Amino acid sequence: MSNPSSHPVNYDDLHAIFINTSLTPSPRLSHTETLMKVAQGIMEAQGVAVEMVRAVDLELAPGVQADMTEHGFERDDWPALYARVKAADILVIGSPIWLGERSSVCSSVIERLYAQSADLNDQGQYVYYGKVGGCIVTGNEDGVKHVAMSVLYALQHIGYTIPPGADAGWIGEAGPGPSYGDAQEDGTHAGFANAFTQKNTTFMTWNLLHMARLLKDAGCFPTHGNQPEAWDAGERFDHPNPEYR
Amino acid sequence: MSNPSSHPVNYDDLHAIFINTSLTPSPRLSHTETLMKVAQGIMEAQGVAVEMVRAVDLELAPGVQADMTEHGFERDDWPALYARVKAADILVIGSPIWLGERSSVCSSVIERLYAQSADLNDQGQYVYYGKVGGCIVTGNEDGVKHVAMSVLYALQHIGYTIPPGADAGWIGEAGPGPSYGDAQEDGTHAGFANAFTQKNTTFMTWNLLHMARLLKDAGCFPTHGNQPEAWDAGERFDHPNPEYR
Amino acid sequence: MSNPSSHPVNYDDLHAIFINTSLTPSPRLSHTETLMKVAQGIMEAQGVAVEMVRAVDLELAPGVQADMTEHGFERDDWPALYARVKAADILVIGSPIWLGERSSVCSSVIERLYAQSADLNDQGQYVYYGKVGGCIVTGNEDGVKHVAMSVLYALQHIGYTIPPGADAGWIGEAGPGPSYGDAQEDGTHAGFANAFTQKNTTFMTWNLLHMARLLKDAGCFPTHGNQPEAWDAGERFDHPNPEYR
Amino acid sequence: MSNPSSHPVNYDDLHAIFINTSLTPSPRLSHTETLMKVAQGIMEAQGVAVEMVRAVDLELAPGVQADMTEHGFERDDWPALYARVKAADILVIGSPIWLGERSSVCSSVIERLYAQSADLNDQGQYVYYGKVGGCIVTGNEDGVKHVAMSVLYALQHIGYTIPPGADAGWIGEAGPGPSYGDAQEDGTHAGFANAFTQKNTTFMTWNLLHMARLLKDAGCFPTHGNQPEAWDAGERFDHPNPEYR
Repeated sequence: MSNPSSHPVNYDDLHAIFINTSLTPSPRLSHTETLMKVAQGIMEAQGVAVEMVRAVDLELAPGVQADMTEHGFERDDWPALYARVKAADILVIGSPIWLGERSSVCSSVIERLYAQSADLNDQGQYVYYGKVGGCIVTGNEDGVKHVAMSVLYALQHIGYTIPPGADAGWIGEAGPGPSYGDAQEDGTHAGFANAFTQKNTTFMTWNLLHMARLLKDAGCFPTHGNQPEAWDAGERFDHPNPEYR
Repeated sequence: MSNPSSHPVNYDDLHAIFINTSLTPSPRLSHTETLMKVAQGIMEAQGVAVEMVRAVDLELAPGVQADMTEHGFERDDWPALYARVKAADILVIGSPIWLGERSSVCSSVIERLYAQSADLNDQGQYVYYGKVGGCIVTGNEDGVKHVAMSVLYALQHIGYTIPPGADAGWIGEAGPGPSYGDAQEDGTHAGFANAFTQKNTTFMTWNLLHMARLLKDAGCFPTHGNQPEAWDAGERFDHPNPEYR
Repeated sequence: MSNPSSHPVNYDDLHAIFINTSLTPSPRLSHTETLMKVAQGIMEAQGVAVEMVRAVDLELAPGVQADMTEHGFERDDWPALYARVKAADILVIGSPIWLGERSSVCSSVIERLYAQSADLNDQGQYVYYGKVGGCIVTGNEDGVKHVAMSVLYALQHIGYTIPPGADAGWIGEAGPGPSYGDAQEDGTHAGFANAFTQKNTTFMTWNLLHMARLLKDAGCFPTHGNQPEAWDAGERFDHPNPEYR
Repeated sequence: MSNPSSHPVNYDDLHAIFINTSLTPSPRLSHTETLMKVAQGIMEAQGVAVEMVRAVDLELAPGVQADMTEHGFERDDWPALYARVKAADILVIGSPIWLGERSSVCSSVIERLYAQSADLNDQGQYVYYGKVGGCIVTGNEDGVKHVAMSVLYALQHIGYTIPPGADAGWIGEAGPGPSYGDAQEDGTHAGFANAFTQKNTTFMTWNLLHMARLLKDAGCFPTHGNQPEAWDAGERFDHPNPEYR
């Protein structure tokens, strides 16, 4: 078997941010974080700088302005988090599942990401262009795909590139039961030996790395036909519609 | 203003397939196809070979096997369509909206795409790796984002790369009303002058082209950490979990 | 413990239709039908007339007209199925899960139900008023809640009443695995002993019966503030908006 | 035209709570509340006691326990809000749309409702049995149905009854634009004259009233086949499965 560390491509200039949207504050255990750490471990083995953020530890004010302290809120930790998101090549959002949906904390993070999405990057594209996104979901019951649908849709819509298989997760059989990583009677941990979960998490992680590498080597996401100011100035990039000027 | 045809990158070796999942058979007008043609026009202006398929004109048997004629159905047009999907670098799925959801024909296409998703490409990756996907949605009422969520999730899950802003669409104000392209009393056509719709369609199209170019120039989606047979043979690609062997 | 058959309310004048939207034609086994039969059994023990329909056995033409044979299709089994739906007090839709979504056959049934939803009943309300709806979902992986969300939303939107806990289902642990009812190595059947699944199915069934009983005893869904022709004639039912006439 | 106030049924013993999950704190204008007030007005004209709550004005701690002050949070306004929800016959949840999804505040409310859903009412049923739920959604763009799907699913799953047409809302044409109620250049207000929105809101409101009346007159949601303690004690309510004991 080949030695993974022999992989010839270098990723150690990449920077990833993992935002865990568990409802549980630190330092208490987050099951979702337990699975996120698998992806983190793979990235770190390649020299990628990974930071793990527990969003519920922060105070993200409700709203869709860049800084809600300018809109009547006393505190808003979003501007500092946004700076970290902008500095990262890769964003992985982790979410638990509640009644089949992503957490309220996850929605709060996405509302704030969305609120900045008309900002521009150095190439005059929307600010998240050139970055790569993925999603990790755990619950004890049902809804990995539904949550991933919602999170990945949001990320691509605001400018992230989504590589193949960018969602991974774990749930148990229908109904209440152990959460990911819970110790079981036989000494194993729920989900740790689930091939589907572990393979998907691994493939997702590598695909995020590959895509981030490609885009970083290209200098940015290619620029033509996707610059709002050019569009607003009247450039139409081969748009064929005679009624649209 | 710059001349778009002066864009220095060449796309004329690319091949795109547009699958329109309208419920309306040819040759009757499909509103969704009307918007898909905007993207088609931009691609063709760059020399891309684009084929437009109306899925409802075909007989796609229900089921999740490669060829349902081997499972009791008299006719199945899926194997021929699958060959065309495999030959294309870019897939754009168009769907109308019915009661907030993608069409049954759209679901049928995705069920068949999914059924092949364990096939492998020449690099030993899942078959759709290296291809790029997008989505166009129209209706007279509500649901562009919900339909796009569902379609783009499916495409990335089975191996497509989703570039930034890969969804575009049009709906009117809440309630019954004109569909995209319907002639209006003032001589204009519904949605043709909607900046949001036209800009998103244009940016989506260019982002599909850029990503297809990047991946084609790279030879394929990069190969490491994403080959099922290596995984099944025991390779773990830096996966750190001690319980998972 | 009380004897269930001693329940003093009589349900034997009720009529239920169960539409199974499996992709698998009869007479082959449908896992979803296996769970639907639990609900059927409870209803039949109370004397309810239950008919089980496998929609994929029928030819439901694509489209949203009452009878697609008037719109170019050679055959359309919908008009006959619609007559049966109209004759039933209770509708239970069963669906498998494919890539986190309801089946294409399920979408087809809902498109056709929706297409009739402006028809009126004897009280001048939308045609499905006074009827009661529920949903049963099975898969081997993930998505019961997402599918139920989509199905129950559609049913209430077109006029069905949804009683408490009107969704039930079964999935296994994340990843490929047995489907509901599959024989296992230890001689049991997947999901048969899952308390969550069996309890939810039982409670759903009784709640459908209770609500159908209440509405049948009331003569219909109460009529005021919900009759389209009165609205169109200018009645506003206490609507307070000064701009809306 | 009949006089609506002549409707012979009396609703003045009913109590409704409207929870608006706008991201905007009081006293600033909430567009969603503007539409919710239409439903409120109809109910109040019938003598129903209606209270309007702006959830973002409260501090709902993240988590899924009854009182998060017992789990490390300094303040939690949920227990007081839960008491009001339990006292009401009708719950209407209002939500804005952000990127096609319900608001984070809406998710927070639903997480807390869900966390109590195993509590029992006086009949030994789940606590929300016998109550009736509906949903109002506004945005400037797209997603009324998707948000309603998510909210109504949650409500029925935890025990609310959903009457016909229990969702209403307003959005404008695709893309940025006015929000519900915004003053327009011609002196009208966005959505005020939209027949679809106003009719749906009116019908929803009356259907909530009718269903609350039916259930209140019945004393409760009928009790048989839906009492968790009986189930846990071994009662099976005609469940036919031989493997399930």
